[in-house]
Amino acid sequence: MAIEQGDVITTGKAKRLYATNDPELLWVQHLNQATALNGKRKAEIPEKAAYTNQISQLLFEFLNQAGIATHFVQRLSKTESLVQRLEMLPLEVVIRNYASGHFVSRFGVENMQVLEPNVLEFYFKSDALDDPFMNESQILALRLADTETLVQIQTVAHQINQHLKALFDEIDITLVDFKLEFGRTDAGQVILGDELSPDNMRLVDQSTGASLDKDIFRQNSGDLTIGYAQVLQRLQAKLGA
Amino acid sequence: MAIEQGDVITTGKAKRLYATNDPELLWVQHLNQATALNGKRKAEIPEKAAYTNQISQLLFEFLNQAGIATHFVQRLSKTESLVQRLEMLPLEVVIRNYASGHFVSRFGVENMQVLEPNVLEFYFKSDALDDPFMNESQILALRLADTETLVQIQTVAHQINQHLKALFDEIDITLVDFKLEFGRTDAGQVILGDELSPDNMRLVDQSTGASLDKDIFRQNSGDLTIGYAQVLQRLQAKLGA
Repeated sequence: MAIEQGDVITTGKAKRLYATNDPELLWVQHLNQATALNGKRKAEIPEKAAYTNQISQLLFEFLNQAGIATHFVQRLSKTESLVQRLEMLPLEVVIRNYASGHFVSRFGVENMQVLEPNVLEFYFKSDALDDPFMNESQILALRLADTETLVQIQTVAHQINQHLKALFDEIDITLVDFKLEFGRTDAGQVILGDELSPDNMRLVDQSTGASLDKDIFRQNSGDLTIGYAQVLQRLQAKLGA
Repeated sequence: MAIEQGDVITTGKAKRLYATNDPELLWVQHLNQATALNGKRKAEIPEKAAYTNQISQLLFEFLNQAGIATHFVQRLSKTESLVQRLEMLPLEVVIRNYASGHFVSRFGVENMQVLEPNVLEFYFKSDALDDPFMNESQILALRLADTETLVQIQTVAHQINQHLKALFDEIDITLVDFKLEFGRTDAGQVILGDELSPDNMRLVDQSTGASLDKDIFRQNSGDLTIGYAQVLQRLQAKLGA
C-alpha cells in the first residue's frame, strides 16, 4: 500500500507530525526553525530541516544496524521521514560524557570536564513545569514509568552512547552530551523515538574545538547550518551514504 | 576521662560545634535560631534549642536501639549533646512519604499526595550552588561518593524511614518527609550524623492536620515552639523518657 500523508497531529518546536493512511506510521516533517530557552527564543533558519532530517536518518539507520531498535522507517524527502507511531514516555533522557551547558553552572565544574562514569539524567517533559530534572524514585512514585522500563531505557541509552561516541570519534567529533526520547510500540516494546541531530546533541570538532550543534544558535555565535553541514558531510563520507 | 569543651569548630544555621579533649568527640550546642530560604530569613526563637536537642536525643537513641548506627553519644544539657566526630559526606538525603513543599510546585502534584514507593533524593551541600538536587550518576561522576556508599546510604535511609514512620504513627503524627546527613567514622564506617528534629522533618498532627515542624516558621503561621513542644511531649510519653 502506498503511504499517504494525512492530517497534522501536532506541531513541535522543530518538527510537524502527520498521520498517514497506515495507523502504525507517522509522517515527520522537519522545520526550518530553531528554538532556545524552552521556546522563548525562536528563529527561521533556511536549510536546517534538510540537515536535521538527513542526519537523523543516518544515525537511526546506523543504530538499527547496530541492533538498537528505533522508530525510523525511511526517509521520504530531504526534510521528511516515515517513522513508527509510538506512545511516547513523558521523559527526556540525557547522557553526558563531558560537562557542558547548565551542568557546568549547576555543579560549579569546569566546562568539558570528563564525566566518568557517564551521567544519565531524566527530565519530565512538561512545558508548564519547565521540564524538571527527576531521579528514578520520583519517576516511580509519580507513575511516569515502571522499574522495568527505566532499567531498559538506561541500558539502551548507555549502549546508544557507546555506538554514537565511537562513530563520532571516527569523524573527529567529540560527542559531549545528547538527549533521547523513548516510546512504546503497539506490541508494548519500548524503543527509541524522536530525532537524532545536532538539535539534541553537543558536538565539538576535535581539530578546531568549534561547536557543530545548536549551541551556535543558543550562544548566537554564527551560522548554525555551517556546523550542521559539517556533521552531515562527515557522516555521509563515513557511512558511505 | 572527663569530657571538656574545646574551641569552636564551626557555627551553622542552628548549631555550633566545639572540639573536645577527645579527638573523636564533638560538643554540639543547639542554637535558638531558625532560618528559611537557605539562610535568607533568620529569627531568634527562645527555647528552640532545648526542643531540637532533646527531640534529636530521643530519636537518635530510638534508632540506636533499633540497630541503626548514629553519631549520638549522650546529652550534656538541655541544649547540648556529645556526638562522634565524622567526616561528613557533602550530601543531604531527603526521604518523602508524601508530596509537600517544593516537590509540589516542581512536579505539579497535590499537596500530601502519597508517594509510593517513597521518594529518595540527594542534594549537594553547597551554599554557593544553593544545594542542587542530584541523581546518583552525577554523584558518581563528580566523585562525591562511591557506589558502595550510595547503596548503603539508600538502604539505611529507607530503614530509618520505616522506624521513624512507625514511631510517629504511634503518637498520631504523620512523617511527611525528612532530611538526613551521613558521615564517615575514623574506622571508615558510614553512619547517621547531624540532627533529627522538626527543623529537618515535616510532621503533621493526625487529628488536627496542624504542622508541627519548621513549616510554621517558613510560612510565618504561628509560634514554632508550640509544635516542637507537642512533638517532644508525645515522644517523651511514648518512649518513657
